Amino acid sequence: MAMLQRTPRALLSSLRTTALRPAAISASSRCWRTYSIHASHASSQHKALDAAQLTIQKNSTPSELLPPKELIFGHTFTDHMLAIEWTASEGWHTPRITPYQNLSLDPATCVFHYAFECFEGMKAYKDRKGQIRLFRPDKNMARLNKSSARIALPTFDSEALTKLIGELVKIDERFIPSERGYSLYLRPTMIGTQRTLGVGPPGSALLYVIASPVGPYYPTGFKAVSLEATDYAVRAWPGGVGDKKLGANYAPCILPQLEAASRGYHQNLWLFGEEEYITEVGTMNLFVAMKDPKTGKPELATAPLDGTILEGVTRDSVLALARERLVPQGWTVSERKVRMQEVADAADDGRLLEIFGAGTAAVVSPVRRIGWKGRQVTCGLPDDREAGPVAQQMKDWIEAIQYGDEEHPWSVVVR
Amino acid sequence: MAMLQRTPRALLSSLRTTALRPAAISASSRCWRTYSIHASHASSQHKALDAAQLTIQKNSTPSELLPPKELIFGHTFTDHMLAIEWTASEGWHTPRITPYQNLSLDPATCVFHYAFECFEGMKAYKDRKGQIRLFRPDKNMARLNKSSARIALPTFDSEALTKLIGELVKIDERFIPSERGYSLYLRPTMIGTQRTLGVGPPGSALLYVIASPVGPYYPTGFKAVSLEATDYAVRAWPGGVGDKKLGANYAPCILPQLEAASRGYHQNLWLFGEEEYITEVGTMNLFVAMKDPKTGKPELATAPLDGTILEGVTRDSVLALARERLVPQGWTVSERKVRMQEVADAADDGRLLEIFGAGTAAVVSPVRRIGWKGRQVTCGLPDDREAGPVAQQMKDWIEAIQYGDEEHPWSVVVR
Repeated sequence: MAMLQRTPRALLSSLRTTALRPAAISASSRCWRTYSIHASHASSQHKALDAAQLTIQKNSTPSELLPPKELIFGHTFTDHMLAIEWTASEGWHTPRITPYQNLSLDPATCVFHYAFECFEGMKAYKDRKGQIRLFRPDKNMARLNKSSARIALPTFDSEALTKLIGELVKIDERFIPSERGYSLYLRPTMIGTQRTLGVGPPGSALLYVIASPVGPYYPTGFKAVSLEATDYAVRAWPGGVGDKKLGANYAPCILPQLEAASRGYHQNLWLFGEEEYITEVGTMNLFVAMKDPKTGKPELATAPLDGTILEGVTRDSVLALARERLVPQGWTVSERKVRMQEVADAADDGRLLEIFGAGTAAVVSPVRRIGWKGRQVTCGLPDDREAGPVAQQMKDWIEAIQYGDEEHPWSVVVR
Repeated sequence: MAMLQRTPRALLSSLRTTALRPAAISASSRCWRTYSIHASHASSQHKALDAAQLTIQKNSTPSELLPPKELIFGHTFTDHMLAIEWTASEGWHTPRITPYQNLSLDPATCVFHYAFECFEGMKAYKDRKGQIRLFRPDKNMARLNKSSARIALPTFDSEALTKLIGELVKIDERFIPSERGYSLYLRPTMIGTQRTLGVGPPGSALLYVIASPVGPYYPTGFKAVSLEATDYAVRAWPGGVGDKKLGANYAPCILPQLEAASRGYHQNLWLFGEEEYITEVGTMNLFVAMKDPKTGKPELATAPLDGTILEGVTRDSVLALARERLVPQGWTVSERKVRMQEVADAADDGRLLEIFGAGTAAVVSPVRRIGWKGRQVTCGLPDDREAGPVAQQMKDWIEAIQYGDEEHPWSVVVR
């Protein structure tokens, strides 16, 4: 795997993509678009995203609220959406909150052909006092900027977009159920909107945010899932884009997911390389709790940020809380490469304590078993339990912060 | 690279994706969508794509034609488009030719979030008799079906779509310039249109075709290009989707392309692995002509179809013509892994004859030099020439077939 070390990813992130635009195509070789970097591009002539310029058009036909128990993830949306256009020539246009509405796009628009698209998943919560809170929005904004820059879409001022999202959430506040476990799922999305088929950096883009009220991932309590360890298909590769939240990372994972489902598994556990390193679950990062074979000391381990896994906000939160609260209890907390064989050995030796996924949708998702090479690796859960103590503890800790029961800098009050 | 051999890709293609749909989500675990395969799904209750049902709505405000010399690739489109909806419950709906028009899509539509999109690039040509011809449309249809199935979008009857594309081309025939070198670029595109945010197989899709009149890639004769051998970013990998024409393969390549451009190169030459195998150029496959170091026999080599390169129609055509017409002249024709070092050695020894890209847009595109590890590998072209003899010969052979000067089964007369 020597090739991993040779990947100077900084090169990619060092480019200021807002400063790029197509140069003129010369008559003698219009075959090749050439691009140049205009230092002036990000200067004063190009407008920054400005939350103060927000215009609001209220929805005159507000929809009826669904009973909370009927909510299905990402099926129904609020009355409004936030949309901001960007052009290479002018920069960010006026932010607009409008009634939720269709996008009208030329069929040649580059988002349909070359996957110029990236997104975020985050939630707004209503606390016991009726205040609305976001959870670590700075992390989502930073990641969206990294995703966007990686596919030559524009970057934006993170605080400005957080403020604008706050305005959207306030306008659609009635859609956030007060019940614990419910929230408003927010989907910031950036798409390239250039209407030509040449393969190059889009000269225009649309940043929009839609919102969907959602119920608890586990309405009747945890339900442990099963994973199929997958090596015949590979989600991400060093030097690829598996650490960015790009649309490109999702569609190719559906067929393996359907195959896993056909064999009775809920999701794929993506392995990498001959070593069969555990990476992630596609919609979640993965944590393994096991005892050290020599010392018996408990360890909570997850894959390192080597470019092949999504840099999950929940992953980061679990790690931070574990370092703060589990290490004093004698735990080791590791970001390291874990081989599937190591997990199976721990299971065989009775050292595997528990495994759980971590992501925005479920917070944590306990794993009962992993199918691997024709065997079932059982992940430490007794038959009559759906979650291990670490998963349960993490969910409690994180939700206490998300819902404002514990005051914490991660939870940002919108209103 | 032992992991390459373990990839049973057949597993992926064996799934009939049109036969998949979401099953009910149980109340106790609605967190996990589960999917089941309904054997009945592709049966008589689901309509196949039927060209005979085509409805045509003529554009009442036809646009003026641009002077051919002002055409820019993929910038202007014809008066009409072909569109066919698909739903998991009904199958293929009625094909429609309508005026070229915007798509109106819910902002939650899965194509914007998870890159459910794939496409083709093909051309219609006008021959000396005024007949309209397609070049190997069966290859494009087969590839679009493979691309679509790989991302859980529906498949279709290839002959039916070819016939429908023929109808579109006939209706917009006036957009095909008669001059040699000009053609009508056709862009069949499939997108997922489900309007929910859950990550799963789309329950609906839209297959559409737009058409753009294009001029010759090299209006004033060949213009040899330069490539930057790229290893810090990786376009495709074993077990990935680099051999499918998915949107997902394009957006991540733009930033490396801009970096290469900033150093004076036209395109990236994607290397793979520690061995630095030559794969492809992102918009073209690559052919290397060099003499064997021992025998001095000329060889035309290109990367094998191992899943990391696009299965180019022009690549296949070059290979077939080379086997038919160059082998009798003493050439060896190889689909094999070629290391960048091998190319550099051939250049140093004076054995490198020429290098050229092969793709629908340019047919062939000669390469003058490749930047690699701080050196310039010159690719056999004298300073005063823009194409080697094999590239020139291939372009002549293929264009003679495309424009009907040579009758050949690859060229299909539409009308």
